[in-house]
Amino acid sequence: MTDSSDAPTPLFDTLVVIGPGLIGASVLHRARRDRTIARRLIAVDINPAFRERVRELGIADEVTGDAAAAVADADCVMLCVPVGAMGEVAATVIPAMKPGAILTDTGSTKVAVIEAIRPFLRPDVPYVPAHPMAGTEYSGPDAGFATLFDNRWCLLTPLPDNAPDSVEAITTLWQLCGARTRDMTPEHHDRVCAIVSHLPHLLAFTICGTADDLADETRSEVLEFAASGFRDFTRIAASDPIMWRDIFLSNREAILEMLSRFLEDAQAMARAIRWGDSDYIVDRIERGRSIRRSLLENRQA
Amino acid sequence: MTDSSDAPTPLFDTLVVIGPGLIGASVLHRARRDRTIARRLIAVDINPAFRERVRELGIADEVTGDAAAAVADADCVMLCVPVGAMGEVAATVIPAMKPGAILTDTGSTKVAVIEAIRPFLRPDVPYVPAHPMAGTEYSGPDAGFATLFDNRWCLLTPLPDNAPDSVEAITTLWQLCGARTRDMTPEHHDRVCAIVSHLPHLLAFTICGTADDLADETRSEVLEFAASGFRDFTRIAASDPIMWRDIFLSNREAILEMLSRFLEDAQAMARAIRWGDSDYIVDRIERGRSIRRSLLENRQA
Repeated sequence: MTDSSDAPTPLFDTLVVIGPGLIGASVLHRARRDRTIARRLIAVDINPAFRERVRELGIADEVTGDAAAAVADADCVMLCVPVGAMGEVAATVIPAMKPGAILTDTGSTKVAVIEAIRPFLRPDVPYVPAHPMAGTEYSGPDAGFATLFDNRWCLLTPLPDNAPDSVEAITTLWQLCGARTRDMTPEHHDRVCAIVSHLPHLLAFTICGTADDLADETRSEVLEFAASGFRDFTRIAASDPIMWRDIFLSNREAILEMLSRFLEDAQAMARAIRWGDSDYIVDRIERGRSIRRSLLENRQA
Repeated sequence: MTDSSDAPTPLFDTLVVIGPGLIGASVLHRARRDRTIARRLIAVDINPAFRERVRELGIADEVTGDAAAAVADADCVMLCVPVGAMGEVAATVIPAMKPGAILTDTGSTKVAVIEAIRPFLRPDVPYVPAHPMAGTEYSGPDAGFATLFDNRWCLLTPLPDNAPDSVEAITTLWQLCGARTRDMTPEHHDRVCAIVSHLPHLLAFTICGTADDLADETRSEVLEFAASGFRDFTRIAASDPIMWRDIFLSNREAILEMLSRFLEDAQAMARAIRWGDSDYIVDRIERGRSIRRSLLENRQA
């Protein structure tokens, strides 16, 4: 031990975060606060305004637009860009990484992201996909904060050829961020997220669009009298459009399947309302309540 | 003035609240706290357990199960029962009211409630329909609190033959509860509420039901990994089943029309996802964001 301080050795020497938006900036805040994740933090963004904000926030030791140069000395490179940009960024970054450095990502869909990155993988650069299930309706570097991941889940979808130590390192990284971790296959991940996150966002965007299309008089009153139901939907619907477009397109099959189930159920509810089928309506409402009770018991609500 | 205290004369001498659940108990809390709404407060409920809780909460001077006896001396009778029970309760209550006393209700739908009450109306008992747009996902007497209506809207839908002083009294009552008031027709009220409140609740109940129907493995993970989107929906879906069944059935036409528009839009979104129509997806997401921005400017969010 040449380290003269009492501080424990960080998990990595140099961590590069590519795309310091809500998720990436939150990782940087946490790493900067605790100093247990990495000794040196580098933030990369193609947007000069975002680089400037990251500098002003003081959450990275270096801020640059040159991803290839930034990753040359990295021990871990984390891709936090929209899922539609993962392949392109991986193509730039992977050839510049040093042997043994770990690549990871934070994409909200896993099958499509892994497919996009796979062509550029090198045998000496392990890639461990992950998805921290945390967020707010805000986006950009200013949206990040150190406690975003506390007690939230981070789902890892390790690849069959991942060496255990690389999976362990990324698991530890997220636990140091405050998250609980779980491994599953990419396919199962995408199905679970389709129902718990992607479909709710799709419905929220849609109902806001439906309201926006109403005749002017009603539309202005929607704004004026937004009761709790609609207001909650607009909060969800305030999320970043490019991120969500990419999620919908890259998790297409699972989302379309869940949406199709949902639309069948909504049609059945419409039919029950039209024909006055009280028992059916109450049964469906009770199911919703039972899910809520289970969530409260699981302390997820 | 025979009143020897400095307190202003309350709006009513005796106020009877029939159905002291979330809304009714909140009115009682407010009236008890400020003493400006009524000198004497009577709560009526058919459920002995609810009567017992109201007694324990100490928010009424009298608590009874006998509606006809309770309203005999009332200056104002407020029906806070589920909208499907309004007609039946009105049939019991109206013949027992004294001439000049005002009847009002707090139902979430107005056309159907007015139709249900109309057959029992007397020319000497003015009926002023109202709908306080406030609530939480909790129900029953324990859910009530004095500040529930602060800065929320209460929509009044006066009838053509309402004398101005009766409308003014109910308007003042809700303003004393902390609410902002607005008059509109019952038909317009039902249309606005269908989109801002009833449809969001219907979608929330439905997605929870859809999740509940998933194969056991996925269902248990839905509970475990409920991300913010789904969790927000379950909060909305925790509301009282009988109340919502009644709302859906009694505002059938407006809800089915809004649901039909929504389903068309959701199908169009599904088609855009299937065929990769990025521009359409982003356009719909942007509309949701613009509604949210307008809400924030209106300070409704």
